[in-house]
Parts: sequence; structure tokens; C-alpha cells
Amino acid sequence: MHSIKRQEYFDRIQKFQARLVRAGLDAALVHGNEADFANVRYLTEYWPTFEAAGVFVPAKGKPILLIGPESENYARGRSVVPDILKMIPYRESAEPNYPGIAVAHFPDVVKASGCGPLRKLGLVGYSIMTLPVLDALKSELPGVELIKADETFMPLRYVKSEAELSCIRRAYEISEIAVEAILGEMKPGMTELQVIGIAQREIYKNGGEYEGHALYCFGGERTNNAICRPTLRKLIKNEIIQLNIGARVGGYSSSVGLPVSFGPLPADQKRLVEFGLQAHIQTITLMRAGIPAASVVQDYEKWVKDQGFGEFLLYGPCHAIGMMEVEQPWMESTSTYLLEKNMTFQVDTFFSGKNYGLRWENGVAVTAGGVERLSEKYMKVIEL
Amino acid sequence: MHSIKRQEYFDRIQKFQARLVRAGLDAALVHGNEADFANVRYLTEYWPTFEAAGVFVPAKGKPILLIGPESENYARGRSVVPDILKMIPYRESAEPNYPGIAVAHFPDVVKASGCGPLRKLGLVGYSIMTLPVLDALKSELPGVELIKADETFMPLRYVKSEAELSCIRRAYEISEIAVEAILGEMKPGMTELQVIGIAQREIYKNGGEYEGHALYCFGGERTNNAICRPTLRKLIKNEIIQLNIGARVGGYSSSVGLPVSFGPLPADQKRLVEFGLQAHIQTITLMRAGIPAASVVQDYEKWVKDQGFGEFLLYGPCHAIGMMEVEQPWMESTSTYLLEKNMTFQVDTFFSGKNYGLRWENGVAVTAGGVERLSEKYMKVIEL
Repeated sequence: MHSIKRQEYFDRIQKFQARLVRAGLDAALVHGNEADFANVRYLTEYWPTFEAAGVFVPAKGKPILLIGPESENYARGRSVVPDILKMIPYRESAEPNYPGIAVAHFPDVVKASGCGPLRKLGLVGYSIMTLPVLDALKSELPGVELIKADETFMPLRYVKSEAELSCIRRAYEISEIAVEAILGEMKPGMTELQVIGIAQREIYKNGGEYEGHALYCFGGERTNNAICRPTLRKLIKNEIIQLNIGARVGGYSSSVGLPVSFGPLPADQKRLVEFGLQAHIQTITLMRAGIPAASVVQDYEKWVKDQGFGEFLLYGPCHAIGMMEVEQPWMESTSTYLLEKNMTFQVDTFFSGKNYGLRWENGVAVTAGGVERLSEKYMKVIEL
Repeated sequence: MHSIKRQEYFDRIQKFQARLVRAGLDAALVHGNEADFANVRYLTEYWPTFEAAGVFVPAKGKPILLIGPESENYARGRSVVPDILKMIPYRESAEPNYPGIAVAHFPDVVKASGCGPLRKLGLVGYSIMTLPVLDALKSELPGVELIKADETFMPLRYVKSEAELSCIRRAYEISEIAVEAILGEMKPGMTELQVIGIAQREIYKNGGEYEGHALYCFGGERTNNAICRPTLRKLIKNEIIQLNIGARVGGYSSSVGLPVSFGPLPADQKRLVEFGLQAHIQTITLMRAGIPAASVVQDYEKWVKDQGFGEFLLYGPCHAIGMMEVEQPWMESTSTYLLEKNMTFQVDTFFSGKNYGLRWENGVAVTAGGVERLSEKYMKVIEL
């Protein structure tokens, strides 16, 4: 089965606690929500929905899962961490009062964790942590210093374990199955959203637990959108149709992205599609353990510019993939880390012109000598 | 078609601006994210994905849509509001640096809006607003008073327009179509997630733009979970299987919820399923324009207790539905508002025992004399 064993969660917590000690923090508060649940699920297996969630992790003591008032039975059935408290800052955004449901406050959390004197509290998942959580910390734990502390936690997620790789590999397999079904069934006149329905059907039929990200299918001018959503627009012949299809398995995401068309494309579009695929494969050849991430970016960008396609670059060429389809670290010219064995990256090759664009996406796991390709079936130009 | 016309967005902005003036606020900053996008989409039609988004609305002047660095083309193609600025606080949680992409800061936003002197800024979507947004406000707009101001905005969403009702009605129709397909195809031995795949297929095939909420199918003991997610567990005979299936149309959500079983249920479970349906219908009879929301709750709870089922109550019995499947206002014993014509509610009848539970859900729109039922096909006990 493609899942993470209980012990692996406890190992993660222990490693995180060691990092808190080294950082001089007494504890950390980790945040997650329905769309961006990774930090919380990484430590507990709990996957919030409707409500948000947190994990209070003392440097010494026991972790406490923090949930909204409605999730108690769900959380008790799912969380590997047995100590669970309900709190108002994690309720739904509709802000019910829940008369009659008893809730905890942060001093209760600190006490239950056996944390000892709390002076410095690290905040993890800072970019998604909400104002009600901050307000509760300030009013209920006055005098405690609050410190953005993502760097104490996020690197734990960079290098994947064998169990994580197993989930990710299966997620890519399901994505390829879904793309195969789409290519077999899509026809001119279908809406973009109908194509998404084919993918959803295949993801769940083959053991996926959810989409790995909000799925993409869109055609025509909007293919120059770096980010987009499918619509009720009908697909037509001789235009780029962008597919990005990702399944989620055991908490882990994937995505396979390719431009396709019904019949031939105009020459300039076909040229960029073909060049994009070359650039995509070129990126993969630049990667191996020990290489600075920034040098992959610099070599990639230089190569693209040397080939005369610099004007079509927006960003790139890789970001990490794991529990989230896009997670830390990105590969950017400003990156300061080296690639390590079992880091997993989405090779994300996006080129946009004025009226069209395209994206090739496949996953890789870094190895000593290069990469393991997590998907490779659709590294080809397809005209239906 | 089931969508909101451009003018309706501008009317909403104008009404919101009038409310800002009355509240003595110079402007408001409205927040949305991928999972909880309603506030932003309500004002602009822009529906963020991967990145978050905001809308800066001056009491006098023009609104500005605030997006992450990757969403510009997408936002320009979608937003009814033409003025758009890219900002780092709305980037993905993976926190890329985007070297080479120029971004704006809040003083640029204030200036572009033509706001005039900014002394009091209302924060809307406070419960999901993030710490980077707050940090940027504090450092870039020092001296500006920041005030939680959901009450200046949320009531705009309470009473639905004809266009909104049209989207919601169609969303419920698609939910009923999806439930019909599930009931025709589900079999013992299927996983919970396979059932979700049937629903997803039907939602997209019939013109839905997304799920209306994270869909539910789960059987056995976990039916006592107020909130839950489907798993790879196989469905078996003679247990409660809880379905909550919701499509989204034109930004508007729906959900149809019912407990079903393969073959007969144990007597105590069947009794609670049947009583739940009675209580569900009873709730609907209590609703009409002019009635205090709190009295619906009090009458409902008294009725349940009088029937001898008080121990199975967790919360209840209705919450508003619209852009989000759960949105303000809830109906609670602490509610202080009256029901109004064209408010839309999800009648949400959840009873949980120790080892089982069930939820009946259908939608209604409040009318002068009672309610319009937005779904009613599955108000019946079903043994497959």
C-alpha cells in the first residue's frame, strides 16, 4: 500500500524537536488549512477539511493537534498524535459560535504539551497562518516572543523517504493513466471542464485520494496563463490545449503537464511546443545530487537564451513537489542549496508568448548520478 | 446560462463602498484564497488558484485586485475589476522569490485606488487573512488603523439575487444528478473514493465548474464524524453509508446529503435515520421570512428533545449556503438576525451516536410564506 507508517510520523516529530532545540525555540506552532494542509498532515496524518488545524510541538514534551470545534471524531480517527484540543481560531471561516461546545485556549495547549516555560514560539506555515491564530497567541500568551520559523521545519520535507517516494511514484502513475484516458476520449466541441471530469473519474477509480492540485485544461489564448482554471469554453481544432493532470496518493501529489492539439498547430506555436519539450529534457540533464540549484537555473536560462527563446521565459524551471504540488524549495537564480538524493522536483517548463503558451511538466527524484524520472510517458508532441 | 453579469459585480462594489462610508472606514482590504475564495470572487469574479488574492476597496475611488506574481494573465482574463497589481504577500505558500518580476506595495495600491488619506482600513475575510498580509500592511502603511470589518461586507452576501439563485438552483440539480448516478452504480466492495469518482464525473459532465465542497462518502463507524474525508475503505452491507455530494456552478455551491445502505440497517440505526429525516423536514416547516433565526434553532432543538433524541444533537440545524457550501450566517441559538426573502440555507441535520451517525442535507431559499426547496429528490430513506 502507498501510505506512511505511524512510526515515520513520530520520527518526523522527533527530528523537528531536535531542530527546535538547535534553533533556541521552546516550541513551534505549525499551521495548515483545507487547501494547504501539508505541514499539519506531515506531522500527524490529519488532513483538515472545512476547518483549519495546527500542531503545537514543544522542543521537549508531546505534540498537540489543534482542530476546529466540529472535527473531533474525524481527527481522533485519523491523527497519529493522540492529544487533540478543539479551538475557536481553527473554526470554519463562516465563524459559527458553537454554543455548548467546550473549547481550549493556548495556555491549555502549552500545559497539555508539558512544554515548560514558554519564551520563544516559532511560527511554521507563516505564509498561511491566520489573524485569529495570531490574535489568540498575543492575548492568551502575552510576553511570548513569536518568531517566523519555517526554516526549522520545511527542510524536513525536502528529502523524501522510501515510503514518501512510493506514494509519489503511484501518484504519477495515476496521473499518466488519467492523461491516457483524456487523450482517448477528448474531442473538439467538448468543454474544458468535461475533460477535467475524465481525469477526476480516473483518479478516483485508480486509488487516488484527491486531485493533486486544481487540474488544468484550457485552450487557445489562455494557454499563456501561468496560472489558470478550466471553464465551459469548448475546445477547437488547431489550437494549443494545455493539460496539467495530477493525482494525490497517501497525501502526496503529482502532476503531468503537456500541450496537445486536435490537428496541426500554426508553425510558430508548433515551434515553441517542440522547443519547450527540448528545454524540458535539457533541464533534466542538468540535475544530479551535489549540484547547486541556482546553477541548474542559470545553465537552463543561458541555454534557452542561446537557443533564441529568452523572450518566452517567465520563471522556472523546477520547484519541489511532495505533499503539495508546489512546495519549497523552488529552483531560482537566488537559490542557495545543493540538490540532494531523494529530493523530488517538478520539472516545470513554461513558455508564454503574446497569444499562446505551453507548459511541460514531469516529476523527477534526484539520484547520485542524475534523476529517476517519476513520469515520462508524455514527453512527446501529440497531435490528436 | 448560469453566471453573474458584469454589472452585478459593479453594483456589489458600490453597495460595499456605501457601507464603508457608513462605517467610517476609508477603505477595506478583502481576502481570499484557493479554498476560501468567496469574498474576492464576489467582488471581481476572479477565482484564485495556487496563489491567494485580495481586493482593496476605497470608500471613494476605484477597487484594485491584488494577486500573486504568477497570476497576471489569468487575472486579466477573468477579473471584472480592471486594475490589478501583483504583490508578494499573495504568492504561493512555497514562497518563491520571483527574481525579475516587478511587484507592488500597499502605498502603490492606495495611490492607484484614488483613496485619499487612509486612516482607517477595514479587514474583511479576517478569519483567513494571513500574517504576511498583516506584516506588509503594518510596515508599508504605518499609522493606519486596522479594524476587523467583516460585518461591513458579509451581509451583502446574505440575500441572493435572481442570478445567484439561478446558479444555486442549477448547482443543486447537478448534485441530484450525481447522487442518482451514485445510487445506480455503487456496490458493496467499492471504496469510498470510487464513489466520489462517480460524483466528480457527473459534476463536470453536466456543467459544474468544480466540487461545491470536499465531497463525502464514508461508511460504518465514521458516519459519526461531523467532518470527515473519504478513504480507500471498502463499503459493506448493512451499514450506514453517508453521501454528501455538491456541485459548483458559476461560483455557487450546493450539497445534497443522505445516508443510504446496502440492505437493511440494524434497528437502532434505522430508527435514527428515519427520525433524522423527520427532523430535517420539521426544520424546513419552521422557516419563513420574518422569523428570528434563533427561534428556528430553539424550536428545532425543543422538538428534537421532546421526541427523545436530544442526546444525538451536536449542532444545527442550518447554515447559509452560497459561494461557499458553509457561509455566514449560521443559524444558532445565539443568532440575532431575522430570516429574509432570498436568503439561502443548507438545512443540515446531523445526528451522531457512539458508533454511527447520519446527515440529511438539502437546500432552501426563504420566501414570504415558507421556503423554495432547492433540492428534494432525496428526502427519502434508501436501502439499495
